[in-house]
Amino acid sequence: MTDLATELRRTLDGRWAHIKDEARTDLSPSDFAAPETELTMEEYRAHVADAVLKIAATGHPARGFPKEAGGNGDLGGSVTAFEMLGHADLSVMVKAGVHWGLFGGAVANLGTAAHHATYLPRIIDATLPGCFAMTETGHGSDVQSLGTTATYDPDTDELVVHTPDLRSRKDYIGGAARDGRLAAVFAQLVTDGESHGVHCVLVPIRDEDGAPVPGVTIGDCGPKAGLAGVDNGRLSFDHVRVPRTNLLNRYGDIDEQGRYTSPIENSTRRFFTMLGTLVRGRVSVAGAAGAATRTALTLAVTYAGHRRQFTPPGAKDEVVLLDYRAHQRKLLPALARSYALQLAQNQLVSLMHDIQSAGDEVDEHRQRELEARAAGIKAVSTAHATATIQMCREACGGAGYLAVNRLPALKADTDVFTTFEGDNTVLLQLVAKGLLTDYRDSFGNLDTLGMVRFGARQLAGAVVERTAARGLIERLVAAAPGRDSEKGPTDRGWQLSLFEDHERHLLETLALRLRKAGKPGADLFEVFNLAQDHVVDAARAHVDRTILEAFVAAIDACEDRAAAAMLSSVCDLYALSTIEADKGWYLEHGRITPARSKQVTAAVNDLCASLRPHAQDLVDAFGIPKAWLGTELLAPLD
Amino acid sequence: MTDLATELRRTLDGRWAHIKDEARTDLSPSDFAAPETELTMEEYRAHVADAVLKIAATGHPARGFPKEAGGNGDLGGSVTAFEMLGHADLSVMVKAGVHWGLFGGAVANLGTAAHHATYLPRIIDATLPGCFAMTETGHGSDVQSLGTTATYDPDTDELVVHTPDLRSRKDYIGGAARDGRLAAVFAQLVTDGESHGVHCVLVPIRDEDGAPVPGVTIGDCGPKAGLAGVDNGRLSFDHVRVPRTNLLNRYGDIDEQGRYTSPIENSTRRFFTMLGTLVRGRVSVAGAAGAATRTALTLAVTYAGHRRQFTPPGAKDEVVLLDYRAHQRKLLPALARSYALQLAQNQLVSLMHDIQSAGDEVDEHRQRELEARAAGIKAVSTAHATATIQMCREACGGAGYLAVNRLPALKADTDVFTTFEGDNTVLLQLVAKGLLTDYRDSFGNLDTLGMVRFGARQLAGAVVERTAARGLIERLVAAAPGRDSEKGPTDRGWQLSLFEDHERHLLETLALRLRKAGKPGADLFEVFNLAQDHVVDAARAHVDRTILEAFVAAIDACEDRAAAAMLSSVCDLYALSTIEADKGWYLEHGRITPARSKQVTAAVNDLCASLRPHAQDLVDAFGIPKAWLGTELLAPLD
Repeated sequence: MTDLATELRRTLDGRWAHIKDEARTDLSPSDFAAPETELTMEEYRAHVADAVLKIAATGHPARGFPKEAGGNGDLGGSVTAFEMLGHADLSVMVKAGVHWGLFGGAVANLGTAAHHATYLPRIIDATLPGCFAMTETGHGSDVQSLGTTATYDPDTDELVVHTPDLRSRKDYIGGAARDGRLAAVFAQLVTDGESHGVHCVLVPIRDEDGAPVPGVTIGDCGPKAGLAGVDNGRLSFDHVRVPRTNLLNRYGDIDEQGRYTSPIENSTRRFFTMLGTLVRGRVSVAGAAGAATRTALTLAVTYAGHRRQFTPPGAKDEVVLLDYRAHQRKLLPALARSYALQLAQNQLVSLMHDIQSAGDEVDEHRQRELEARAAGIKAVSTAHATATIQMCREACGGAGYLAVNRLPALKADTDVFTTFEGDNTVLLQLVAKGLLTDYRDSFGNLDTLGMVRFGARQLAGAVVERTAARGLIERLVAAAPGRDSEKGPTDRGWQLSLFEDHERHLLETLALRLRKAGKPGADLFEVFNLAQDHVVDAARAHVDRTILEAFVAAIDACEDRAAAAMLSSVCDLYALSTIEADKGWYLEHGRITPARSKQVTAAVNDLCASLRPHAQDLVDAFGIPKAWLGTELLAPLD
Repeated sequence: MTDLATELRRTLDGRWAHIKDEARTDLSPSDFAAPETELTMEEYRAHVADAVLKIAATGHPARGFPKEAGGNGDLGGSVTAFEMLGHADLSVMVKAGVHWGLFGGAVANLGTAAHHATYLPRIIDATLPGCFAMTETGHGSDVQSLGTTATYDPDTDELVVHTPDLRSRKDYIGGAARDGRLAAVFAQLVTDGESHGVHCVLVPIRDEDGAPVPGVTIGDCGPKAGLAGVDNGRLSFDHVRVPRTNLLNRYGDIDEQGRYTSPIENSTRRFFTMLGTLVRGRVSVAGAAGAATRTALTLAVTYAGHRRQFTPPGAKDEVVLLDYRAHQRKLLPALARSYALQLAQNQLVSLMHDIQSAGDEVDEHRQRELEARAAGIKAVSTAHATATIQMCREACGGAGYLAVNRLPALKADTDVFTTFEGDNTVLLQLVAKGLLTDYRDSFGNLDTLGMVRFGARQLAGAVVERTAARGLIERLVAAAPGRDSEKGPTDRGWQLSLFEDHERHLLETLALRLRKAGKPGADLFEVFNLAQDHVVDAARAHVDRTILEAFVAAIDACEDRAAAAMLSSVCDLYALSTIEADKGWYLEHGRITPARSKQVTAAVNDLCASLRPHAQDLVDAFGIPKAWLGTELLAPLD
């Protein structure tokens, strides 16, 4: 690794660099890589279950659990370790993530001291394999409408967990088909005929011998597009009885008299508070998507650096693929975006760590910000993974289609990331909703006309809340040239102000549109639905801006001069290729002139050409150990 | 099926409707569908080899071969039948396509009477399983640079086939790993120390017992992203001797005195003529990609028509997915594009049939047009398949990730289509090259200034050669409104002239750019490479226009009024969503105003809403038998 790559890696590794280094040294491909021989689904599941036990034996999973329950209380470190697992077999990552992250996270975050004492030690050492039984066959995105019920029976002081119909069957549940013993079941909690909304109840699903518990019917989702080592299954409950104390009761409890109590009165707020504590799942998926994408880029860029095809007229040697502009255009903007997303992910993990380590005293605004950031970064990172891994496969031609070269598994395993832990389209709407809520909080008292008069510039100060490097970015934006400036498109202030303007305009017009249309008597669904593409665009613009700000902050913090300069070029490529992709919007709204638009395209081409000699350094800086990458793609044929 | 769907199907089915109907009745899922149980790679390969024998037993494969060799001489019917196989297991389609289409096609098109008599009967009945050994480990796109040699030895009157190095190993060869007996090997033909360029030689690779022939080393490509039933392998030849007459000698022969002769003097022209006869492979891949995409759309649209999620405020029922604008926006423009591509594919098959049925008397211009059309439609259809099947998987959420619901196999099996039978980026450059050649043919004598003075309008008449419905399209374009017309974006003449303008401008500026830069002494690779994105854009614009023209011609030919009106709306959605995707270019080049651009977006939204009630009819019209589609996605949960 060159000095430059080492310095770049330092910036990419961020706050939990020590965890990443530990994983680079400790994770052994023979334990955690996908098996090289062809396995049946059952054999693969067994292999992955073993790998999870090996992870348990390292003791690392304790990292993410509270100190008082035998953990280390290092949430950020824990999520970072999962991200590193994303470079290995993604079946292992998901299986581990389901057990420790989702199931363990539910017990840790929704349960209280007694649950922690009873279960967490056996969760940490993986002797009690668990499931996270939220999604139902008929309800994925709309968790609030789950059909499973947990009804309190005062006669026996038990909860009766029941699946009323096929729609309410738990579906796609990782760990259900083969290994899970205890399930964290999300169900409508009912006491005395009254529903209190969705809560989480621990329900045993298999006995010590692995046989289904009476009343529990277990199905198998069978083969999937990828993640063959994860035993996804289906759970139906026929009036299954568990003790009242199996209710994870941090946000809602039933006392010995059978009375329901909760620290949060409003049931919708309670529901979202409970879900909010589970944000770690989305952060982890975003991290794993990033890791898989970086693996794919490392393979495709390395291959493109030695694979030759076509001899130009008069030349002696064939041209190296990465010297073709069309090939640079495919790989390098995606590489720049992976840099941007890694830096934004680091920031997100840090935010989550600080907020969730603060205990119950969390500011609601900060918590909402965390959830919106996680939703947005998850949506953008997983979409980037799907598009980029696909492109890398194609950039390697036939070799990219062979399983031995890993790209097929990277594609197939990450494919579900765009729709699990929240469908991306739904998540982006969640982001927009959060922004509109902030918007309403600031301007709720102004009528439409007043809001318009209030003026775009002042409005922006409130709506566009800086996520990083506030002072620096303010200065850059303030110094930004106007539309037809003589400064080139690589002026950072210009890029920042353009991203900001994009977000602000979409948000302002969206708020006006929803307010205008949302008159009394209006069909609210119709109003919302007609604006749905606008909603999603506004969210995406917001996420793009926060990612750019994270990049700017990371460059600012980079002390090595050469690395900072290189990062600045990569940031230019991220910013300008994003602007280029949206140039229709910018032109339509008079934000850039046609001449500027052409300058942006020219600048993207120039940046591709100038970064091309450093492409290998740029992927080496991802710091993926060679042993994890070993494929035929890495070395030239002779 | 409604009357409307039936009438739409009539238009979609086109000239070989009877072949499609035959396949709908005769193809039995139990014979040709992907197996429902989990198979090892070896078992799957055996299953697919059996399926190919079952196809042979139907006698249908004779359809594509010349009458004098026991065939029916119905090329169009043959390619259409392959397209229908694309609705079944794609491993079977590819395995059959390799044997009859590529291998059989090489013997039929590059061989002469003796080869036809000796081999075609056993190729038609599949008793002589073959391979098409063109691609090498080091040479995929650049076939002209293949390293395998076939050297004539006058002492024994034999050809010596040899693999000089690892780069020259035949790779990814379908049928090589398990079943192939005879390979059509592409190699540099050498006589008396002189190379005559790439020719095709028949080389036995396995004996009657299936053991490799001495001197032939066979490798296995192993598991792949998809197409698990196709036995892709590797072939190396160590001075393997075959009789001189094993040279497929239609375009180049060695006589009994060891002298090389060819009806085509120029070796480059000879090479491209030989490759040109093999155009059927690309046409077939485009067809299969279309079929797989239509299957995916049928599943996703049907699912979106009954799957519900989220109850709007104040409503009783949850909303059906397809009522969400964001969901319409995903599915319906892709559906419209699939209509457009089916109609363009029909036209392409027809063109190929007519040209290849005409024997040797083919006009070179027409042949070049066919090759360019096949390359362009293949590139656009397969890219559409990759993007659309991915989107359909995501639109079905977790259910779309389960193998039982077929979307995973559709995605994985078609994934290689974008890079085999010609990498899409390379193919688009081929299209552009063809256009530039036409351009030069028409204007070769004008200098740059003269060409500019010649004026854009006149230039266009020559460059933009109408592909269909010439009179009608001329009239529509002539009546087309100007940039700021009062006619709406659904005016067909406006759409046509915009597509045409897009292509013409890109092509004109490309020609000027290449000519300007291509001065004596210029680095020709540099000149070409800096324009590479421009080249690809020009090709894409050209293909888009020909597809739109095919759509317009098909509507014109549709006699049913209701169906024609519906097709017209679908065509609007195809045209406008394509314009919307390129709006950055149109705005940048002053082809549309910002106001018009917003109108286009609004029109796409309106078209989605107005087509939504007919979405089921639109997919039913694809005419995919229910038995082929049977998955859990088709029926509501209750």
